[in-house]
Amino acid sequence: MFKKVLIANRGEIAVRVARACRELDVRSVAVYSTPDRDSAVVRLADEAIRIGPAAPAKSYLNAAAVLEAAAQSGADAIHPGYGFLSESPDFADACLAQGITLIGPPASVMARLGDKTSARALMRGAGLPLLPGSVEALDPHAAEDLARRIGFPVIVKAAAGGGGRGMTVVDDADRFADEYRRTQSTAQMLFGDGRVYVEKYLPKARHVEVQVLCDGHGNAVHLGERDCTVQRRHQKLVEETPAPALPEGLAERMGRSAVEGALAVGYTGVGTFEFLLAPDGSFYFMEVNCRIQVEHPVTEMVTGVDLVQQQLKVAAGNELELSQADIGLRGVAIECRINAEDPAAGFVPAPGPVERLVVPGGPFVRVDTHVRQGDVIPPHYDSLLAKLVVWAPRREEAIARMLRALDEFEVSGPGIKTTRTFLAEVLSHPRFRTAEHSTSLVDDLLSGKL
Amino acid sequence: MFKKVLIANRGEIAVRVARACRELDVRSVAVYSTPDRDSAVVRLADEAIRIGPAAPAKSYLNAAAVLEAAAQSGADAIHPGYGFLSESPDFADACLAQGITLIGPPASVMARLGDKTSARALMRGAGLPLLPGSVEALDPHAAEDLARRIGFPVIVKAAAGGGGRGMTVVDDADRFADEYRRTQSTAQMLFGDGRVYVEKYLPKARHVEVQVLCDGHGNAVHLGERDCTVQRRHQKLVEETPAPALPEGLAERMGRSAVEGALAVGYTGVGTFEFLLAPDGSFYFMEVNCRIQVEHPVTEMVTGVDLVQQQLKVAAGNELELSQADIGLRGVAIECRINAEDPAAGFVPAPGPVERLVVPGGPFVRVDTHVRQGDVIPPHYDSLLAKLVVWAPRREEAIARMLRALDEFEVSGPGIKTTRTFLAEVLSHPRFRTAEHSTSLVDDLLSGKL
Repeated sequence: MFKKVLIANRGEIAVRVARACRELDVRSVAVYSTPDRDSAVVRLADEAIRIGPAAPAKSYLNAAAVLEAAAQSGADAIHPGYGFLSESPDFADACLAQGITLIGPPASVMARLGDKTSARALMRGAGLPLLPGSVEALDPHAAEDLARRIGFPVIVKAAAGGGGRGMTVVDDADRFADEYRRTQSTAQMLFGDGRVYVEKYLPKARHVEVQVLCDGHGNAVHLGERDCTVQRRHQKLVEETPAPALPEGLAERMGRSAVEGALAVGYTGVGTFEFLLAPDGSFYFMEVNCRIQVEHPVTEMVTGVDLVQQQLKVAAGNELELSQADIGLRGVAIECRINAEDPAAGFVPAPGPVERLVVPGGPFVRVDTHVRQGDVIPPHYDSLLAKLVVWAPRREEAIARMLRALDEFEVSGPGIKTTRTFLAEVLSHPRFRTAEHSTSLVDDLLSGKL
Repeated sequence: MFKKVLIANRGEIAVRVARACRELDVRSVAVYSTPDRDSAVVRLADEAIRIGPAAPAKSYLNAAAVLEAAAQSGADAIHPGYGFLSESPDFADACLAQGITLIGPPASVMARLGDKTSARALMRGAGLPLLPGSVEALDPHAAEDLARRIGFPVIVKAAAGGGGRGMTVVDDADRFADEYRRTQSTAQMLFGDGRVYVEKYLPKARHVEVQVLCDGHGNAVHLGERDCTVQRRHQKLVEETPAPALPEGLAERMGRSAVEGALAVGYTGVGTFEFLLAPDGSFYFMEVNCRIQVEHPVTEMVTGVDLVQQQLKVAAGNELELSQADIGLRGVAIECRINAEDPAAGFVPAPGPVERLVVPGGPFVRVDTHVRQGDVIPPHYDSLLAKLVVWAPRREEAIARMLRALDEFEVSGPGIKTTRTFLAEVLSHPRFRTAEHSTSLVDDLLSGKL
């Protein structure tokens, strides 16, 4: 096992990694930007090093500063969390060059999966079902021809995209050329890579993803699926496992597909295969996330497996301690992301000083947060304030428990607004309760269609 | 199901019951004493009624005031929690007379099990193993004869005792008569009933108890055992399930004994059969607790069963929704009771205003507490501040997780001391880690013997 792990992240995921290190008796090093100097992970890690000012580009995205902190502290591994440097093949290469293990798949695998056109080609080769579309970036004319052939609506996606950014749905041919060029510009701006491609768009689909765990010895398992259909602007708000109301045997087929895809590319560590699920029960590969996901706790609650501990173990070279047969799924888990945003004002970030914080507790409730009463939520980073996760034997009980826990959650302070009551409305809605929802649920709720 | 449940208790168990009611969509009524007017349960319940001043005898032990609140609020059931009125047959009778369901076994069962000599006689009849001793209260001469016959050390116990009070270990014949009379006086003072009896004392025993759940239709199941060996002055400090290092098949035999005992007396609701486990693997019935226990969460974490919800359901007349075969045990759970006491000063209560409170979170950690930052812990009640519960696949992982969670737990304010670091010392001790401990562990640690 590693001697010392540097946590190259902030917020709740940095706390999550520090907890896993502590439980495995591995020393941990927090890095922090100036406004995060009194944050929870600074207290919970064994050491803490400032790496720069507030601006992400100068701190958490500053690979040189992170590597310098690793050298200074003598860390033999870096856990990148999610976001920031977690899916950067360049950072992975730089770690390797410095003799430090980056906890995640090899840089080459990260690069091939990070490019969505390349990922589509690889997964088609591995036998995974794809939506009709291209497996390479296309020029505008070829793209428009393809879009007409597969039929509108289509979705135009940045090859280098991720995290739900750099995507545009196009409903008809008239708007295609303009939207295509606009997405190219956006992609160039966001990712420094203007290549885009075209896929058939399924308006009534659900987002279902499979958690995989692979060691460096050719072993791979899946840990069931997660339904992340409740999204706003491609950002997940609520996640649950198992995916409700799936046709018999479908979850198992998706799980096997993900494992086959992972083995085909020599994947190691934890990873997520994202699929679109059509109303007719067919599913289509979308992308692979080469990191721990925000929503990993729901999988932990039904499997009893600590995914971050497992991630550390396989990154250290251990063989998987679990076979597929060892992984049992029990009950239902749901996660709500409580963001410091104002739903009444278009979900604009609403950070500030936390004057009061009461987190829910009691049976089968888990809270992952980096926020403590008295902290100030800085405005420079994403707005995730806490993840609230519940478990119950059955889905309706889990929903009741989540509504109870959301009601108990108290956070207030000058300027702070949260998505808490909005999430309760989503979970209370009959479309969600009956699992007859699609990725348009939140938009339909907000626009008054539901 | 009930329409409205009055919660005749305070502290964490009142919050626990309010949560179960909310999740079952049953209205709840909190009752509170003056110093508890701003307590968590007052906020979490649907209604709240003041029942008296601080003194327990005038509030939480005041049956007339509780029944008046029930009448006033129109509650059709009362949940008594643990302690206070929870095991009072008189209160159960008074509820019945008022047409209100007291959530628990019938008054007659409570009475027969509440008297420990009667309980011993009943369980001997049901075939449960008893320690050598009497099944009736004895006069001093007969008691001394018996003590000599079964051999010292013996333990003298109040027939009306409970909660670890009214017990004296006597090591030799010389001290017997004095200690016997002293225990009689104590029993008279504590319980208004001076009857005492004698049992063989096992100095190196472990305390192992079995959770049962019974409906009013003749169905009974057990939900595994709990090891509550870590005690100080017969007060439990740490509880875990499963009991570690049991001989093959023993847990199942104890579980079956408890179910047989429950069926023999027509038990209904949740209940706990407490056993002493001798080093040779033989076990002996001690007593039945006719209520939910402080330590019930560890059972919930390994079974996935919400015991308080089940308690409400069977009290409402439902048939058990679980058969013995439905109850699976997964992994290991440990609970630590964090008390507002000063271990450096003989565990004297150390309440006060809570200026800072940070509870641990993350994977497989549960916190049951009624305390929020800014609350004042009143000096009038028991010192339980929070129950910290963790789960893991294996015992050593659960211990590591508990030590991590204890380390994260922050509570401070003028006058406040807690057992947090003392509990960490207990869990870190090799005797505990290897499960080679007995009920004398804490005394041996405190006296420097270990």
